[in-house]
Amino acid sequence: MSTVDKLLRNVISKDETNGNKVTIVGVGQVGMACAFSILTQGVSNDIALIDMMEDKLKGEMMDLQHGSTFLRNAKIRASKDYSVTAGSKLCIVTAGVRQREGESRLDLVQRNTDVMKFIIPKLVKYSPNTILLIVSNPVDLLTYVAWKLSGLPKNRVIGSGTNLDSSRFRFLMSEKLGIAPTSCHGFIIGEHGDSSVPVWSGVNIAGVRLRDVNPKIATEIDDEGWAAVHEQVVQSAYEVIKLKGYTSWAIGLSIASLAHAILTNASSVHAVSTLIKGEHGIEHEVFLSLPCVLGAAGVTDIVRQPLTDVELKALNKSAELMANVQEELKL
Amino acid sequence: MSTVDKLLRNVISKDETNGNKVTIVGVGQVGMACAFSILTQGVSNDIALIDMMEDKLKGEMMDLQHGSTFLRNAKIRASKDYSVTAGSKLCIVTAGVRQREGESRLDLVQRNTDVMKFIIPKLVKYSPNTILLIVSNPVDLLTYVAWKLSGLPKNRVIGSGTNLDSSRFRFLMSEKLGIAPTSCHGFIIGEHGDSSVPVWSGVNIAGVRLRDVNPKIATEIDDEGWAAVHEQVVQSAYEVIKLKGYTSWAIGLSIASLAHAILTNASSVHAVSTLIKGEHGIEHEVFLSLPCVLGAAGVTDIVRQPLTDVELKALNKSAELMANVQEELKL
Amino acid sequence: MSTVDKLLRNVISKDETNGNKVTIVGVGQVGMACAFSILTQGVSNDIALIDMMEDKLKGEMMDLQHGSTFLRNAKIRASKDYSVTAGSKLCIVTAGVRQREGESRLDLVQRNTDVMKFIIPKLVKYSPNTILLIVSNPVDLLTYVAWKLSGLPKNRVIGSGTNLDSSRFRFLMSEKLGIAPTSCHGFIIGEHGDSSVPVWSGVNIAGVRLRDVNPKIATEIDDEGWAAVHEQVVQSAYEVIKLKGYTSWAIGLSIASLAHAILTNASSVHAVSTLIKGEHGIEHEVFLSLPCVLGAAGVTDIVRQPLTDVELKALNKSAELMANVQEELKL
Amino acid sequence: MSTVDKLLRNVISKDETNGNKVTIVGVGQVGMACAFSILTQGVSNDIALIDMMEDKLKGEMMDLQHGSTFLRNAKIRASKDYSVTAGSKLCIVTAGVRQREGESRLDLVQRNTDVMKFIIPKLVKYSPNTILLIVSNPVDLLTYVAWKLSGLPKNRVIGSGTNLDSSRFRFLMSEKLGIAPTSCHGFIIGEHGDSSVPVWSGVNIAGVRLRDVNPKIATEIDDEGWAAVHEQVVQSAYEVIKLKGYTSWAIGLSIASLAHAILTNASSVHAVSTLIKGEHGIEHEVFLSLPCVLGAAGVTDIVRQPLTDVELKALNKSAELMANVQEELKL
Repeated sequence: MSTVDKLLRNVISKDETNGNKVTIVGVGQVGMACAFSILTQGVSNDIALIDMMEDKLKGEMMDLQHGSTFLRNAKIRASKDYSVTAGSKLCIVTAGVRQREGESRLDLVQRNTDVMKFIIPKLVKYSPNTILLIVSNPVDLLTYVAWKLSGLPKNRVIGSGTNLDSSRFRFLMSEKLGIAPTSCHGFIIGEHGDSSVPVWSGVNIAGVRLRDVNPKIATEIDDEGWAAVHEQVVQSAYEVIKLKGYTSWAIGLSIASLAHAILTNASSVHAVSTLIKGEHGIEHEVFLSLPCVLGAAGVTDIVRQPLTDVELKALNKSAELMANVQEELKL
Repeated sequence: MSTVDKLLRNVISKDETNGNKVTIVGVGQVGMACAFSILTQGVSNDIALIDMMEDKLKGEMMDLQHGSTFLRNAKIRASKDYSVTAGSKLCIVTAGVRQREGESRLDLVQRNTDVMKFIIPKLVKYSPNTILLIVSNPVDLLTYVAWKLSGLPKNRVIGSGTNLDSSRFRFLMSEKLGIAPTSCHGFIIGEHGDSSVPVWSGVNIAGVRLRDVNPKIATEIDDEGWAAVHEQVVQSAYEVIKLKGYTSWAIGLSIASLAHAILTNASSVHAVSTLIKGEHGIEHEVFLSLPCVLGAAGVTDIVRQPLTDVELKALNKSAELMANVQEELKL
Repeated sequence: MSTVDKLLRNVISKDETNGNKVTIVGVGQVGMACAFSILTQGVSNDIALIDMMEDKLKGEMMDLQHGSTFLRNAKIRASKDYSVTAGSKLCIVTAGVRQREGESRLDLVQRNTDVMKFIIPKLVKYSPNTILLIVSNPVDLLTYVAWKLSGLPKNRVIGSGTNLDSSRFRFLMSEKLGIAPTSCHGFIIGEHGDSSVPVWSGVNIAGVRLRDVNPKIATEIDDEGWAAVHEQVVQSAYEVIKLKGYTSWAIGLSIASLAHAILTNASSVHAVSTLIKGEHGIEHEVFLSLPCVLGAAGVTDIVRQPLTDVELKALNKSAELMANVQEELKL
Repeated sequence: MSTVDKLLRNVISKDETNGNKVTIVGVGQVGMACAFSILTQGVSNDIALIDMMEDKLKGEMMDLQHGSTFLRNAKIRASKDYSVTAGSKLCIVTAGVRQREGESRLDLVQRNTDVMKFIIPKLVKYSPNTILLIVSNPVDLLTYVAWKLSGLPKNRVIGSGTNLDSSRFRFLMSEKLGIAPTSCHGFIIGEHGDSSVPVWSGVNIAGVRLRDVNPKIATEIDDEGWAAVHEQVVQSAYEVIKLKGYTSWAIGLSIASLAHAILTNASSVHAVSTLIKGEHGIEHEVFLSLPCVLGAAGVTDIVRQPLTDVELKALNKSAELMANVQEELKL
């Protein structure tokens, strides 16, 4: 009789999962920061990791498992075989290739589309009721691609979008005002990255619009440099990459906050990339970030912000560009 | 067009629950301490409360809801209609009547059995896959009753048992040694209350058995008063009730720790009341506490502790007494 | 040689506190809900309880201690002797007497002022660098009294004020809109209770003012009943007291959120009662709630909201009334 | 008048820190995993990072700051100037050089000693009451070096030691038994790394010693492969480094658990490297891991485990080797 049989009287076999399983595809710096944020913040204690680099994958799995005593007994699985993801409530996709020197944007998107063609059907096969959260860049286009490839309803396919941009904006605002980031409110919408749009009309502290306090804010005649705050947000990613080689912690935390909203069915509002056809005069079938209500069903509502002409124009321009790219893509 | 329709574009209706729903039957001091412990510790953010006293029930629901901004958007529902409990993963039963003056123990058990007859079938009807966690006293007998009434497999019906007694024991030990309770290890097993059994052979710090350090520990020739630690555990409930009128916080926290183990599928070990027929020579179909492995399937394993003759005798005496009472009960 | 001496080699004596000590005066339902919220949410794990009813006090202490295994080894002390509070970073005062039948408001305030005369000097004696957080009602008046009695600078004496009213407002708004309370933004300011003032101009979702979406909101011609939301906030306390006999959970959570902001030096914004002389045209030395920046130094800033004439008038009326009462008080 | 002056009325200047400040020296994979574990688990929200590589340092600081909205408003500072560390309660040292090809162990230790000569005096200068937690390898030797260089009492200088080895051991044991790591108890002591010593006599589940269940456990005649569990622990670091290039998550979590014990004054028991002169017959002034009671004063007690002759011999051999190396070091 073995030690375990002498020690334990078995009553019933254990359940495989507690129903809060999260899959993360891609164990690079971003994927691992997502996984670690989710585990350490107790968002889920049941994680499956997927990657094609088996050594790296096994190393990351072991490193997390060695800390499971400190993670409230989290279960960490990893495999290049997608059966390990079965029954996930949420699948986070961070995999993707990087731009080659001289490569056109379209070529890059096509190569990452091909990556999605490999990943998305397998995820949906093993977790037909999952929500897909796309982090890979260019995130708005790839969320569209994932939606098309998945066959899932639009509410269940979400891009991380400008949730991180908004967080950076709130931090920089907090530095300028000496107020905690969580009390600095503002949304950046539209395309994740260079073309993102700060909605200054909604920027507020305790409901007090900064634009009411200072009508010149972020305009050309503003001598306090508020427009630079958005510029810094745009430059942030470039600067962090230049300084440390990649970004990881902030995107990991940003994804964990979205995962928390979804897994707890919170109905909280976050700027994420969603199918925005029909909003703000956009008639293209494109994904861009707007403030969305997130819950167990994914995006249940889109918040309708009043936008200025400049903001609308920027949004529509992004939509136009994306529609053009999408037309060229081979899905 | 209403404010909400102007503000929000609806994409899809919201899900009712995120799959971690917990029902608590009985909103007295114990039930509410359970609910509040579960909510504040993030064990679940989806709670249904059941009671027959509609005023009290509504008051408790409103009071919790008014704090939901501070509870990560917890959903609190309450009704005397059990349909509000539908789809619960875990149902915690704290309801029950108190001993009347001059009432025999058997009469009390019968009256609480009648309460269970009212509650248990409705819980199982609305949540056929639930786990039942019985807190009402006498807990070991009522867990048996709930098991019989529910028709659920034995692993899915659990009594809070000596989990609290063990926690009190560890606190008192921590006071005596100057070491944190979480680093003071020891289990109290058997019948919850006066006849509980401390398993001195397993009491240890960092794997160092106190009995190896001091062979006289808790024996008649022990001049350090260790036996008194168990006596204090037994007296604790009486003393707290005498001082403040009831016990609430510690039992609430104890239940939340069990709920956490179950909802996160932790496979962690806790002293809970389980069907122990076949263990330690007990052939009666009775529920008593032993260290059990708890997960999403309920009790998956019982840990087999080597017991002394005195400990075995105490367990068997409890089993005998309970079997006798059970024989008289009208289920 | 004792068990502990054989088991442990002592290196150095233990520190009394980790520097995050919180004292709570009054172990009634409110005081205990504060203590339990602070402990279960990890705001502090070092609590001192003070009350004059020694039995109740000891019972509450023991009940919390019995759960310390589940509270990350929290230290719980209790005594009617204030030396137990020494070195507290934050002292929360929930003690006070209730209105007698036929008693005038002034008489009640005077009696509670006498209670403060007993408590405040002792707290300051043992924790001269503490922050005082007053919860006892009428909270705005008693915060003034505590400030006067303490000799502490105004930033270190805070009343819980309309932090709870604002939380209730956000919950009710969340029910109306189907959006999480944490994403429903709005502040109630002024006097805690019947005369509180909702600042509708700042009520927003994702920076979108409801008043911009629906200009009639909370006006006489509003047919969606938004004004009733504030009325419900005012009625909430009365209704909960009628239904369950007292309020506890929401005020406990509200206080824990303020304690968290102070102990973590967060610089986050909360509606709390502060000395508002000089704001909104008020020249009386009175305490009323406004959105304040809270950190380790207490109230470091007051957020200047633009208010309507109606709002200003209501604030000034409260200030006037309070100044009158204060004039009659014997400090 | 600036926006901030119009928005805020300043009452008092903000406090620099809340008293829970943690410094981390070295922002490599280990240092950052420590920082991120501490921040995401709420162990401290006030972090100072130190490194000599200014670009990397700034990049890591910015990346964390961009996520501060999701970190309960954590304060993140970074500089190569040690004044940024002033007033830290805990300083964690992860900096160090790696072994060069062909370099002797002594040469490596000397080079890292020189690194410590640069770091330790500056840390102590700015935080004279700090606790030092050394993570750099070889950890036991460098903790001795840090102790000597710091002039701090022995209780305030701690090495991360075998806390991680013990965690790995518990995880592997949990895999073998199907029980949560937090319910699998066992300590690995002695030298961190290849010469570490598993104390089999204390390995237990619910107080049941595996050695009592199976006397052959981890002996030469054990056919269940328990000795291999310790071998796997030793191989773990090598294997993870081979697979992913470094170890990070588990050591980060392990350090965060020690930081939590210290900052909350928990008096919990952890295997850490401490001055063990006088224990287990060791007369050398060396640091090795034993189960220690950790609190705000650092190591307050050492738990005295009964050890077998084999275990004692291994410990003494490590002590001997370390004393020899120490003799050669130029401090």
